[in-house]
Amino acid sequence: MENEKKLYELIGKIPPVDEKAIAEARDRQAYLAKPPGSLGTLEDISVKIAGITGKAVGNDVTKQCIAVMSADNGVVEEGVASAPQSVTLSQTINFTRRYTGVSSMAKYFGIDLLVTDVGVAMEIPKELYTDSMLTEDGRIPVKIVNRRIANGTRNLAKEPAMTREQAVEAMLIGFEAADAAKRSGAQLFGIGEMGIGNTTTSSALLSALTGAKAEDLVGRGGGLNDEGLSKKVKIVKDAVNMYCMSDPIDKLANIGGFDICAMVGAFLGAAVNRMPVVIDGFISIVAACYARELNPRVVDYMFASHKSYEIGYTIAMDRLGLRPMFDLSMRLGEGSGCPIAFKIIETAVATMNIMKTLEEAAIDADYLEEIRRDNLF
Amino acid sequence: MENEKKLYELIGKIPPVDEKAIAEARDRQAYLAKPPGSLGTLEDISVKIAGITGKAVGNDVTKQCIAVMSADNGVVEEGVASAPQSVTLSQTINFTRRYTGVSSMAKYFGIDLLVTDVGVAMEIPKELYTDSMLTEDGRIPVKIVNRRIANGTRNLAKEPAMTREQAVEAMLIGFEAADAAKRSGAQLFGIGEMGIGNTTTSSALLSALTGAKAEDLVGRGGGLNDEGLSKKVKIVKDAVNMYCMSDPIDKLANIGGFDICAMVGAFLGAAVNRMPVVIDGFISIVAACYARELNPRVVDYMFASHKSYEIGYTIAMDRLGLRPMFDLSMRLGEGSGCPIAFKIIETAVATMNIMKTLEEAAIDADYLEEIRRDNLF
Repeated sequence: MENEKKLYELIGKIPPVDEKAIAEARDRQAYLAKPPGSLGTLEDISVKIAGITGKAVGNDVTKQCIAVMSADNGVVEEGVASAPQSVTLSQTINFTRRYTGVSSMAKYFGIDLLVTDVGVAMEIPKELYTDSMLTEDGRIPVKIVNRRIANGTRNLAKEPAMTREQAVEAMLIGFEAADAAKRSGAQLFGIGEMGIGNTTTSSALLSALTGAKAEDLVGRGGGLNDEGLSKKVKIVKDAVNMYCMSDPIDKLANIGGFDICAMVGAFLGAAVNRMPVVIDGFISIVAACYARELNPRVVDYMFASHKSYEIGYTIAMDRLGLRPMFDLSMRLGEGSGCPIAFKIIETAVATMNIMKTLEEAAIDADYLEEIRRDNLF
Repeated sequence: MENEKKLYELIGKIPPVDEKAIAEARDRQAYLAKPPGSLGTLEDISVKIAGITGKAVGNDVTKQCIAVMSADNGVVEEGVASAPQSVTLSQTINFTRRYTGVSSMAKYFGIDLLVTDVGVAMEIPKELYTDSMLTEDGRIPVKIVNRRIANGTRNLAKEPAMTREQAVEAMLIGFEAADAAKRSGAQLFGIGEMGIGNTTTSSALLSALTGAKAEDLVGRGGGLNDEGLSKKVKIVKDAVNMYCMSDPIDKLANIGGFDICAMVGAFLGAAVNRMPVVIDGFISIVAACYARELNPRVVDYMFASHKSYEIGYTIAMDRLGLRPMFDLSMRLGEGSGCPIAFKIIETAVATMNIMKTLEEAAIDADYLEEIRRDNLF
């Protein structure tokens, strides 16, 4: 109960965005040396960033961090996943080796990766663990942060996946991750996950939240066959019907996963810390929807990256009222959509910082005299 | 005639892509530590790059150049553009000041910008010109390259926009730009333009090439009103009907622009130089279609960046058989879609270079012993 009180206090701390900076940014965009609106969504992004940081021009979004939440799901014993549970373990380790999708991108672009074990089922060698989300000199560690709540959740097809207390604990871990990113200097934050079976939990959560039918949002995840797919649809349907779930935290506890709960906390924590935060794919966006359920203001800090290949993605996107920036038919998860979104946000901010207004860019007598006098070029 | 012979010789020089490298890249993608296909288009991009460079792994695409072709169009005297012709002049100058959309992005990301005056109508101060596309030490100059064919084209609503000889000359300038980019070390190339009135010329060219109706491909360009739009549709329709145009070069000469002709040459020149080349928006993709008409092999070197807001874009895209990577409702031109596309291509290449196969990434006894012995972390 102590933890739950703490959680609700944190959730309430999201500041409103800066409307004055938004108006200033919108105004400057209208006068930049281009047809108004011709930079499309890039203009909207630069304006949204202004609202978050509180200034229209001079924003810096080059220091970036992606939090990856790893956990296992008891429901995999029903045969709803195409990969064995050991993959959660091996990929979690391989994030720190920079061998996976998102970690190879992070290595290339110099993005920090905050890898947290929130409840992986199999044992991780203790040498790979660290207890702290920050190193002594304030950096994101290249180890796995040990926040293991249990050896995976229980099987939601048979019993609640976790207790309400565990869900709250996982969400607080998410807040801790956002705080660590902020303290490390991150100016852009992204949220991803690793957990075999988590397209099942996220589908169930999305169905429970929106009332959308299981058939309309259950996809093949990593690569499920037809038999596995119909089993997955049935499990999602039954799960949503089985439990009496009055609030979002009960839903998260009964049919969610430790990874998703931690991601919900990380989204909310990003907003509390005034950090722009990027949604990855399907699981990430379901977590974003639950964050919105707990405090709608969080959406003002969110950016959708790519249109996930998972069929439920659009339902979740509509719920948030956002639009994805790109569609590369990706369905990997891990936060792998975040690096490209970071580059798009950087582009938007760069145009706002560097472009001149028509007046500032005028080729007038003064300018011409200047180049003739100084031979500027 | 001498020039035309030279042009056809160059067009014939596009090498086939390396099928062996493509097969190797495709094979490696299938074994990387992820569900096969889960990186979507990023996988296809890495494979296409392999075909162009001739190697599956170890490609470097960090040195980048965007060529911007500036020219004016006589047809603007019909009132088909929302901005005055002086904007071609001022933006061309402002590229070198890094004040415009694409040039601010280029400055931010360290991308070279090769700005060429192929036929701007108004006078550019001679201090801003250079005669060479490369500086003495082999870099792309931060000046405007003087390749002015004429003070803009003639009014295609009344007479052919240019002579066939002029079209050929402009295309050879495009080849020169691709050669200069290659010699400067560019590993990725992008092609943009500046020219008030060039959505009219490109619409006419696309209609003449595909048979698509003017109504289906004429858009509002920089921001045309209803009256201007119907005038533009009529001019495009009449232009396509007015001239007997037997081959692509005649079409380019009669109803095109110097900018578009130079862009056609630049696309073909990129392929001759084995440089991956990125298409920007509507005008860029129409030039890409004409390059394909002259040698279909050029498409193997092309990447589409964003889905332009101009309505004719999709018709051109279908013609090329490509798919855009992102949709940010942009319609600025200048090559402003290229920087983000470069970052996406970099991401694709980074995953191919850095990710490991499932076998290489195995958490096996050897690995565990290694971390315990060396305390690697």
